[in-house]
Amino acid sequence: MRDFSQDHRWLSINTATVRKQHGKDWGLVEILDACARHGIRAVSPWRDQVAAAGLANTARTIRAHGLELSGYCRGGMFTEPNATDENLRALDEACELNATCLVLVVGGLPGALYGKPQHKDLAGAREVVRDGIATLLEAARQRQMPLAIEPLHPTYAAERACINTLEQALDVCDALDPSQSGAIGVAVDVYHVWWDPKLQQQIERAGKRRLHAFHVCDWLVPTTDPLNDRGMMGDGVIEIPKIRGWMEAQGFAGYSEVEIFSANNWWQRAGDEVLATCIERHRSVV
Amino acid sequence: MRDFSQDHRWLSINTATVRKQHGKDWGLVEILDACARHGIRAVSPWRDQVAAAGLANTARTIRAHGLELSGYCRGGMFTEPNATDENLRALDEACELNATCLVLVVGGLPGALYGKPQHKDLAGAREVVRDGIATLLEAARQRQMPLAIEPLHPTYAAERACINTLEQALDVCDALDPSQSGAIGVAVDVYHVWWDPKLQQQIERAGKRRLHAFHVCDWLVPTTDPLNDRGMMGDGVIEIPKIRGWMEAQGFAGYSEVEIFSANNWWQRAGDEVLATCIERHRSVV
Repeated sequence: MRDFSQDHRWLSINTATVRKQHGKDWGLVEILDACARHGIRAVSPWRDQVAAAGLANTARTIRAHGLELSGYCRGGMFTEPNATDENLRALDEACELNATCLVLVVGGLPGALYGKPQHKDLAGAREVVRDGIATLLEAARQRQMPLAIEPLHPTYAAERACINTLEQALDVCDALDPSQSGAIGVAVDVYHVWWDPKLQQQIERAGKRRLHAFHVCDWLVPTTDPLNDRGMMGDGVIEIPKIRGWMEAQGFAGYSEVEIFSANNWWQRAGDEVLATCIERHRSVV
Repeated sequence: MRDFSQDHRWLSINTATVRKQHGKDWGLVEILDACARHGIRAVSPWRDQVAAAGLANTARTIRAHGLELSGYCRGGMFTEPNATDENLRALDEACELNATCLVLVVGGLPGALYGKPQHKDLAGAREVVRDGIATLLEAARQRQMPLAIEPLHPTYAAERACINTLEQALDVCDALDPSQSGAIGVAVDVYHVWWDPKLQQQIERAGKRRLHAFHVCDWLVPTTDPLNDRGMMGDGVIEIPKIRGWMEAQGFAGYSEVEIFSANNWWQRAGDEVLATCIERHRSVV
């Protein structure tokens, strides 16, 4: 297992972590500049941030700083209208930015994200998702951009993603890519999977070629908000080094990407303080 | 599948559903009287309510009304101090009240329920839980009181129960009772398991002898509080009749027990209104 204690060369910052500081948005270029200033080598930006900064401008800034992309957030939402077009655009952007993978948050019951679920047919939604991934996978293969299904915590099954365990995600990968080429794999976010009694077994099943991304934060006790009360690594109950050990035992050698949605704590602090804390915790508890 | 539309003979009320009305507690005897008044034939009371009303008094009232107990809430919390003694007491009370089963909410990381987790060793907690169930099972067999492991939604893995899927619960049942005698089985609460892609498969695996209880409420979109924002049946996205159909296809013929924790809605209404609504929804959407 890699020693993270001496430096932060394997730290990546998901740009949602510092998107709102003191209540106002930090623009993506500001975030990229700040990451570079802190000696951070990789990021994972969100599409809306890239759109606001401009794709060409973003690509230029990333190249100028020599940053890598541990992933691109995100494709998916296959159960919503216009998913096909949106996902092709996301794919092209991921290619333009030379991302490691396009992360897929697959979507839940249509309309549920907006509080108006159009039906309750979860199995049906899962079929739509699988078909959507199959279609996108063809385009992704042509562009040689790996897709990474991110199973989300079951608490998000209705609104955000009806793929909720690593096992379920890998069943989809097996079906669409039986040779396990790595064209489609998974993003393992400890927040979503830490509770799963089959986690170690399914990480082993995935294997190196399908472990495309590793996201970290922490599960707070208590968690006051289902969406935006994620903790900084070390502040909760997730055994992060144990899970990273399982990833690395399979040969995963990528970035440890910090993704924290924290409306009342980390999004209220100065971006530089958040980044400094990420670095410190990356070295001490990841 | 049984037709629930004509009457509510298979409705049970978990007494937590009406424990706080207009902000003040309804005592257990009041609840039992109200259930009888509404023609409800079964309940599932909580230990603290029984303790407040007195065990003998509770047993007398239940007999007087001819009520059955679809379960007794609850044993478990095996990772907390004094679990062994508490569970033996719960078992004896379940026997005294002639409950169908003693429901087990197995506990999570020790101390987490009080906001102070003593460690993060989830696998270790799961071992403690399994050993605790094994010990309790001996006593339960002697008393011929079935135990029902209730897998809780993964969002409660830290604080309340580190058994989080039906598959995981049945693995424990298989290990402790290989003959599948039914001495230990499961309580299937739709709120906790509706999201699980393996739900139908695992209900089939459980089989009639291990399906000890069926709890209903609904998953609201959005859910504003992880614990006390459960919905009335029909107000959320759970396909309750589909899941009940899976249960009944295995031969389950017990009560459909309504268990709703709802701090800001149902607990703020008059108890009689809540019970009337449970009856109406039982007939129309369960």
